[in-house]
Amino acid sequence: NQPPALVLNFSSCSLPARCSGSAAKSLLFRFLPFLRWLPRYPVKDWLLGDIVSGFSVGIMHLPQGLAYALLAGLPPVTGLYSSFYPVFLYFFFGTSRHNSVGPFAVISVMIGSLTDSLVPSENFLESVNGSNATVNEELRDAARVELVATITVLTGIFQVALGLLQFGFVVTYLSDPLVRGYTTAASVHVLVSQLKNVFGVSQGEHSGPLSLFVTIIDLCQKLPDTNVGTLVTSIIAMVAILIVKEFNHKFANKLPMPIPIELITIIVSTGISYGVNLNDKFGISVVGNIPSGLKPPVPPNVSYFGQVVGNAFAIAVVGYAICISLGKIFALKHGYKVDSNQELIALGLCNFLGGFFQCFAISCSMSRSLVQESTGGNSQVAGVIASLVILVTILKIGELFRDLPKAILAAIIIVNLKGMFKQFSDLSTLWKSNQVDLLVWVVTFIATLLLNLDIGLAASVAFGLLTVIFRTQLPHYSILGRISNTDVYRDVAEYEMAQEIPGVKIFRSSSTVYFANVELYAEALKKKVGEPPLKKQQKKLEKEKAKKKKPSSNDARSPSLPQNAEDGPGLAVIELSVGESSVPPEPTLHSLGLPQPNFYAIILDFSSVSFVDTVSIKILKNIFRDFREIEVDVFIASCPVSVLAQLERGNFFSSAITKHSFFPSVHDAVVHISRERHQASVST
Amino acid sequence: NQPPALVLNFSSCSLPARCSGSAAKSLLFRFLPFLRWLPRYPVKDWLLGDIVSGFSVGIMHLPQGLAYALLAGLPPVTGLYSSFYPVFLYFFFGTSRHNSVGPFAVISVMIGSLTDSLVPSENFLESVNGSNATVNEELRDAARVELVATITVLTGIFQVALGLLQFGFVVTYLSDPLVRGYTTAASVHVLVSQLKNVFGVSQGEHSGPLSLFVTIIDLCQKLPDTNVGTLVTSIIAMVAILIVKEFNHKFANKLPMPIPIELITIIVSTGISYGVNLNDKFGISVVGNIPSGLKPPVPPNVSYFGQVVGNAFAIAVVGYAICISLGKIFALKHGYKVDSNQELIALGLCNFLGGFFQCFAISCSMSRSLVQESTGGNSQVAGVIASLVILVTILKIGELFRDLPKAILAAIIIVNLKGMFKQFSDLSTLWKSNQVDLLVWVVTFIATLLLNLDIGLAASVAFGLLTVIFRTQLPHYSILGRISNTDVYRDVAEYEMAQEIPGVKIFRSSSTVYFANVELYAEALKKKVGEPPLKKQQKKLEKEKAKKKKPSSNDARSPSLPQNAEDGPGLAVIELSVGESSVPPEPTLHSLGLPQPNFYAIILDFSSVSFVDTVSIKILKNIFRDFREIEVDVFIASCPVSVLAQLERGNFFSSAITKHSFFPSVHDAVVHISRERHQASVST
Repeated sequence: NQPPALVLNFSSCSLPARCSGSAAKSLLFRFLPFLRWLPRYPVKDWLLGDIVSGFSVGIMHLPQGLAYALLAGLPPVTGLYSSFYPVFLYFFFGTSRHNSVGPFAVISVMIGSLTDSLVPSENFLESVNGSNATVNEELRDAARVELVATITVLTGIFQVALGLLQFGFVVTYLSDPLVRGYTTAASVHVLVSQLKNVFGVSQGEHSGPLSLFVTIIDLCQKLPDTNVGTLVTSIIAMVAILIVKEFNHKFANKLPMPIPIELITIIVSTGISYGVNLNDKFGISVVGNIPSGLKPPVPPNVSYFGQVVGNAFAIAVVGYAICISLGKIFALKHGYKVDSNQELIALGLCNFLGGFFQCFAISCSMSRSLVQESTGGNSQVAGVIASLVILVTILKIGELFRDLPKAILAAIIIVNLKGMFKQFSDLSTLWKSNQVDLLVWVVTFIATLLLNLDIGLAASVAFGLLTVIFRTQLPHYSILGRISNTDVYRDVAEYEMAQEIPGVKIFRSSSTVYFANVELYAEALKKKVGEPPLKKQQKKLEKEKAKKKKPSSNDARSPSLPQNAEDGPGLAVIELSVGESSVPPEPTLHSLGLPQPNFYAIILDFSSVSFVDTVSIKILKNIFRDFREIEVDVFIASCPVSVLAQLERGNFFSSAITKHSFFPSVHDAVVHISRERHQASVST
Repeated sequence: NQPPALVLNFSSCSLPARCSGSAAKSLLFRFLPFLRWLPRYPVKDWLLGDIVSGFSVGIMHLPQGLAYALLAGLPPVTGLYSSFYPVFLYFFFGTSRHNSVGPFAVISVMIGSLTDSLVPSENFLESVNGSNATVNEELRDAARVELVATITVLTGIFQVALGLLQFGFVVTYLSDPLVRGYTTAASVHVLVSQLKNVFGVSQGEHSGPLSLFVTIIDLCQKLPDTNVGTLVTSIIAMVAILIVKEFNHKFANKLPMPIPIELITIIVSTGISYGVNLNDKFGISVVGNIPSGLKPPVPPNVSYFGQVVGNAFAIAVVGYAICISLGKIFALKHGYKVDSNQELIALGLCNFLGGFFQCFAISCSMSRSLVQESTGGNSQVAGVIASLVILVTILKIGELFRDLPKAILAAIIIVNLKGMFKQFSDLSTLWKSNQVDLLVWVVTFIATLLLNLDIGLAASVAFGLLTVIFRTQLPHYSILGRISNTDVYRDVAEYEMAQEIPGVKIFRSSSTVYFANVELYAEALKKKVGEPPLKKQQKKLEKEKAKKKKPSSNDARSPSLPQNAEDGPGLAVIELSVGESSVPPEPTLHSLGLPQPNFYAIILDFSSVSFVDTVSIKILKNIFRDFREIEVDVFIASCPVSVLAQLERGNFFSSAITKHSFFPSVHDAVVHISRERHQASVST
């Protein structure tokens, strides 16, 4: 059931001068992917599916668009615009065949927090007849639309720029656990922002760090004012939508298309609201006037750019991260490729152009995309059909929804969060599979809850990168031994079969060696090679117990710091072993008056070293020098060529340290050492 | 000439309950190191040297203290306090025997930028007789002293806390290139801040990013107002000090102690200034009143804590970083150890207690420490002597310096920057040795110049850590081949002797595999294994030239992004090689209708993988599945045990991927593959 390959092979030339015509054509095909696939569109096979799917998605767009506009703090009609323009434009630019672009809860709540803080309702208070001050909603909404349109244009500019610069990879910094922790926290923000509509209380907007908790406390204080009618309406709507969605899910393969319960709910509730006049009788607030028709384009207000540049960048990155991860899942399932950079450009153009037509920033919706796929959608044509459904709504039907209660929209938003909240199960999955990723998830979640969606994202990305630093900074150090009759060397603490070569210490770090961990490396080396085999140590300690106190290991807590020479087990143990070691400490001269250790060579296994810097080269030189002083030779094995080149440039080599200390493998070094040793003993 | 070991072996017990008495004693000895070394102080051998050295250093402290107080924007007497209290206290707590703690230019200029921005002179304007407004310097200085004392106490608290928490390792983030770039930029700030005193013009303080350039422009505009007397004074002083310092340096081993030119300069210039009355006659500004005697302790003004917490932390870290790097150099040279955490605690206590006595934050001075060492100083006793010299000055002599021209102090400050500016030669050294470190140096320098000393430091540390991320994110990928007659496998592109095993692709990344680079890893793998040997490819391309366009490599610019299946050289090349490859593509069934590649096994060399996360496990699973689909077996070799455990926890293994795919070394995997292959061909 593999769909036919739609994409032609038009690769651009590497020498533009020679084949500029073809290059221009290729560029055109690259930026307008529909030129590639539309001429080959298999009308018979795909069109019906795309139409059915397009209608289903369009019908979802209507309630979701209205709801997410509410979430973004904007008049409902902007949600319809955002469900039309970008969806239509994506047809021309997009490369994912199943993504349903358009309003998305996380992005909408990011916008909502901005409208709350930059254009708060308090700025539009005016006293009517000298009595209570009320908010002039028209002026406020106009200001908010202007602000959000500007953010959307800026978001689009960022996305197009990142796409053209082939910087789609920035999204790799948003690792899977981070995105899931972030969207889960965003869902909590969404939930909290909608509770006021569920309870029908009026609440001021709060912004800045910890505003989530301020909002919750504020809400709790206002709970006595709950409008029972609103609460009942939203609970009924939530229960109905939940049940039908469950039904849809259960009988997915028996239904031709899912029951459009959200659409039914808003139609029925609008009808009831209009018939019973809920607004006047029970004070249930409704969405209000929805103007018909499209508006002429308005340029963005560039004076806002400075204020929103950071947020626009965050929205650009998060919106893209969600789209590309969703797009890749579908591409994998259906065996086609999405072009990461072209997706970024496509999203950017949708946002940029949409911003001129009062759209707010969009991304992809998981729930809609799944419907688009499951109802037989095969290509971007489904998106066009969906956008046409919305266009008809905007032109003719939209205004009918003026009596739709806001509580219904809040119910739709909250029910749609169900999938997001399922991500809490990541906690147990990650606990079992990878605790560092769990930590990233939890830190992202908490940071996003506490610091809100913009600073929280920045803090989370910084933390995610710091975990990499920590992991490379706290590597696992081991002494290797040979697995008998092989050339394989393994950690003696982990492999019982691995036997240390007598007199030779083979040391390995699991990570590369650079400024932040090289002192730790040197300390660990000195500590590890100084330790005699465990059993011997224990025996000795039992003997010594009565005589003197055991050298403590309290220094282990501060691993990166040099120990007082007298505290470390290293020297103490060496002294002991000089006396009565069973592995013969080769009897050489104690020329420098220093204690002679029970080994005469150290091999540093460099197979995990991927780069070195000036700090690590300095410390490595010290290691060579320090061990030479106690007549121990140091060798380096399995050093990658690139690291060797870095060592050479960093003046590592001298008359004291030459490339003769370097061996391609640990075994080569061991063979060399034992040969030298043999020759030395023969000649004496 | 090894000094006798001074430190006794008092290691604390790991079980405090069992030996609490000894633990308490050990704790006491740890926090008061002088209890350990003072009883064993070799009076005969060391005392004379320490006294001579102490006098020399004390004599340096006097002009430097006055000068650095000027730099910090404080009355000169605070410089004397800062040269007395902390230096005296360090005797009890410090473990470095040669560091000369006390005022330091970089720290002083960090404080100076804070006094400028938080307590600007403009706040203390008052009109005298209704005419021109003048600054009430007394009030201003009192406010500044209060602010700086608070910063100093807070700095001390940070340092003690970091020391007690054994967090001395934070300083490892300040890599050598970073510290040198930072101190060089700080020296530029110092220089610019002193130019107004050299030219004798009055200048407002500027703070915030880019303030350095504002100050320079401001100064240039005011150059016409230069006070010629001041300029001449400072130039003469600079030349004199420079010449004598050069002389000191040249005849260092012939002089019993360096000529105290700075002291001589301030004495002579004070005398001249007093005799000729430079202040009145030529308008040369002088340091003014220096009160005699010590002041009772004053608690810090905690209301400043919130404003200065970030700066105090930066001062704490930078001050410590300079001390510990200097201390380690001397310790290495003289064969003793400095305890990193105890040094942090010692510095912290010096600052904390000093802050109560109007001191500003201190660190170590390179120039003074070198004098302390070269004049025969052997221990912290030299510091005590130096502090007593300053105490006498404070009590009796200080007030005599009221006519000292500020220009002289500026000259002393500027001449002392010479050593710092020598660090510019790092640029050529690092260019040759390590360009990433050069980049860190340059970025630190520029960031510190542009963003000032606090934000610049934070930005530099962030950049330094990002270089690590970039280095792990952009590793070197290679295909390995066997070096004939050995078990060693090396990059075929780098080793001519390395020969690829026919039909087996061995792939290695120089870095670990984690969320930010794993997609790149997968792409690089697919690209590398798809490439036929170079010569064959070239031949084929020549042939094909006329027929069709060469598949471009423009995708190489976006390496982390999936290519359109049709664009990548991978599949195109595989198709070609099916037809006419000379390495026989084993004729197996094309069961899935996919092109059969010219290899049947892939070995992933995991020796450089130090950890994996959930994202990388997911992509690795995809790699196994994708290659299985084209009937290529995937094996993993040299996987560290810790990574194996992480894979296991991360649900990597399944019925499709078992541990049978894992081999201890690349060679074992190759042997296994060829054996399997042989059996298969025998049985058919």
